[in-house]
Amino acid sequence: MRKHFRKHNLPVENIRRYLEPGPIVLVSSAWKGRRNIMTMGWHTVMEFSPSLVGCVISSGNHSFEMVRRSRECVINVPTTALTDEVIGIGNSSGADIDKFDHFGLTTSKAEKVKAPLIRECYANFECRLADDSLVDKHNFFIWEVVRAQAAVSPKSPQTLHYTGDGIFMVSGRIISRRRQFLPEML
Amino acid sequence: MRKHFRKHNLPVENIRRYLEPGPIVLVSSAWKGRRNIMTMGWHTVMEFSPSLVGCVISSGNHSFEMVRRSRECVINVPTTALTDEVIGIGNSSGADIDKFDHFGLTTSKAEKVKAPLIRECYANFECRLADDSLVDKHNFFIWEVVRAQAAVSPKSPQTLHYTGDGIFMVSGRIISRRRQFLPEML
Repeated sequence: MRKHFRKHNLPVENIRRYLEPGPIVLVSSAWKGRRNIMTMGWHTVMEFSPSLVGCVISSGNHSFEMVRRSRECVINVPTTALTDEVIGIGNSSGADIDKFDHFGLTTSKAEKVKAPLIRECYANFECRLADDSLVDKHNFFIWEVVRAQAAVSPKSPQTLHYTGDGIFMVSGRIISRRRQFLPEML
Repeated sequence: MRKHFRKHNLPVENIRRYLEPGPIVLVSSAWKGRRNIMTMGWHTVMEFSPSLVGCVISSGNHSFEMVRRSRECVINVPTTALTDEVIGIGNSSGADIDKFDHFGLTTSKAEKVKAPLIRECYANFECRLADDSLVDKHNFFIWEVVRAQAAVSPKSPQTLHYTGDGIFMVSGRIISRRRQFLPEML
């Protein structure tokens, strides 16, 4: 069942909670009156403050020039409710269709960037390009998250983790081991 | 229950199956007669061929100088059977203890690098430093996987996905959607 989540703002240094487990994400972009979405699995948290996320966006993707030129994007985190959309978006090109319309996804306006937020996603991170030094060589973009929003509930939604070959791992149970950590290592 | 897996070699371009879902990994290193292990959650696949993996290893870690100077490491993928070890390794320093001895982990010799493989891990990827251009600025290492091994079974072991705050997400059910993909998008 798809739904729009009620969301709250969160400190940008807290986004590791959503991205470090490695979910597939949807990257939305806007450039010269066009908008697009791509499915992305190759990303990593890089720093807490500034809040940096690195990701590979292949130059073969329609989104590549859009994010490179606009120097902005939104990283949206879908749950398993969007499995069909995640796959459909990854297997179509923004050169041919408007993916928002085609997949029935709705948007809300970002505050700090022009790329739209995907309302049906659990979390939305507005990003500005922080370092493009490895874009030419490795298609690697380093983004600074400048605004972060996430759903108030559920606390641990089911996310999709791609393994290649059409197969996803779904997030399962949560285990808390807080007491085994040094406070500074949490 | 900890065990040693029976492993087979796999093509290095296939490691995305193990790393793209975003598990916490153990990085082993060797330098000047010393060895070490660190727990790492900030990594991403970057390319199939050559097989590239990018990761952040903070300069505050004992492993930082060991991997920077040796220009080698092994990325080992633990399952939930090693949850205590993953946490213990992340909350101690190789400056104080030999973590292999302390946590009772056994090694086997790598073929292409000097850093040891951790036998109790499900998969082992031998890596050579491919690009250090962002090490000074972002502690970001780009590794080429030069040899890959993984357990023959189980096919989908339970892996740990860190969210911060002492909380891990454990991988759950697997869903296959192969037929919804374009062949070139798998």
